[in-house]
Amino acid sequence: MHRPRGEKLWYIPDGYIPEVSSGQLTSHESICVLNTASEDALLRISIYFEDRDPMEDIMVVVAARRTKHIRTSSLHQEGTLIPVGVPYAIEVQSDIPIIVQYSRLDATQAENALMSVMAHPIK
Amino acid sequence: MHRPRGEKLWYIPDGYIPEVSSGQLTSHESICVLNTASEDALLRISIYFEDRDPMEDIMVVVAARRTKHIRTSSLHQEGTLIPVGVPYAIEVQSDIPIIVQYSRLDATQAENALMSVMAHPIK
Amino acid sequence: MHRPRGEKLWYIPDGYIPEVSSGQLTSHESICVLNTASEDALLRISIYFEDRDPMEDIMVVVAARRTKHIRTSSLHQEGTLIPVGVPYAIEVQSDIPIIVQYSRLDATQAENALMSVMAHPIK
Amino acid sequence: MHRPRGEKLWYIPDGYIPEVSSGQLTSHESICVLNTASEDALLRISIYFEDRDPMEDIMVVVAARRTKHIRTSSLHQEGTLIPVGVPYAIEVQSDIPIIVQYSRLDATQAENALMSVMAHPIK
Repeated sequence: MHRPRGEKLWYIPDGYIPEVSSGQLTSHESICVLNTASEDALLRISIYFEDRDPMEDIMVVVAARRTKHIRTSSLHQEGTLIPVGVPYAIEVQSDIPIIVQYSRLDATQAENALMSVMAHPIK
Repeated sequence: MHRPRGEKLWYIPDGYIPEVSSGQLTSHESICVLNTASEDALLRISIYFEDRDPMEDIMVVVAARRTKHIRTSSLHQEGTLIPVGVPYAIEVQSDIPIIVQYSRLDATQAENALMSVMAHPIK
Repeated sequence: MHRPRGEKLWYIPDGYIPEVSSGQLTSHESICVLNTASEDALLRISIYFEDRDPMEDIMVVVAARRTKHIRTSSLHQEGTLIPVGVPYAIEVQSDIPIIVQYSRLDATQAENALMSVMAHPIK
Repeated sequence: MHRPRGEKLWYIPDGYIPEVSSGQLTSHESICVLNTASEDALLRISIYFEDRDPMEDIMVVVAARRTKHIRTSSLHQEGTLIPVGVPYAIEVQSDIPIIVQYSRLDATQAENALMSVMAHPIK
């Protein structure tokens, strides 16, 4: 049996899906999750906005002993996607401890730009 | 009722507003705040410099259950803005726990560059 | 005698070795380790994937009072390298406390992009 | 009287001063320190290498209620600078608590790339 590692609740205040891409790569963001445990992790992801109520409890499974790099553009709730070009923030809850990192590739201009942070864990 | 998450005091030592922009995008920095609580958060932001006294207690409200991505170029104290092209540091105090991330887009040259960090929380 | 500093277990969920390079520099990632102690640190690095079992316990030594910036493309287990162009995650275990940072240079396009994070420590 | 905030010991494993610059900006790294206290902070910075003994106890003062963005290329010990193009790691000790962030601008190619991390604090 492998132990879960990390925390059950993580936050990323700076979410943003760029509207356009002009280089060889497509602009995108990823929520990168690692589940070190021998059991699957069930995630509930909530999205907070500047001017409207949150989208709550988008469900994602990260399998036992696996990582999952989740494109935020793939997240939806009953078919509703996260809007592009809008500032938002991300909450990741899990039923078992996980580790969460956030990365963004911005290809708005001809050359790409990268940023990455560990999400902020709540103990 | 939704609980506040995070901490009440956060620091970002590396603040800098680039002087010029030459690409499609404008250079800017953002202090990205998430307030998960059912009540508004009242922030007091202070700016520290290398060679003069701090600008203290710039007030900002982040509404309940909302994120706010605050452009540092919009912060002012009685009409005085943060000077551009000058190294500075940022303190974010809040009356309730919040989560704070800092990101910078540098468009000084034709192509943009990105950086981001979680602010350092004081417990 | 110099004391070890940091933690014995660190995680980086967002690992990725870019497939191509087109600039003057070669795309690469580095796991940057600092060993402040008067004794050598023995690391066991494990790699987690999205769709297969982990590569476990790749051994690396970081000498006493030294740093080592480990190219992930140099890590192998019985001759098997980490595949390029595939999302993965990294676990770094050490017999004594160390400090771990992860950086990536992406030279997929003509100009390079950089990202860096402190790994997430488990206490 | 203003209180000191943060920690007295911080680490940055991934230090690197790029050898060349080709854009409008010069490649550089900065150790960004914030001293929130009413008294000056006395820093002792040590540099660790991959293949030689550390350079220890480079002294720097950060004045009361000030930030200081220290160019690593300005640090020296009896006239000896940190070598360029060589991987190294950074230790920052202070007599009072401070907050430490590390940022790098890489202008090796025509367009700049940025990275930044909070240093790892030891409690």
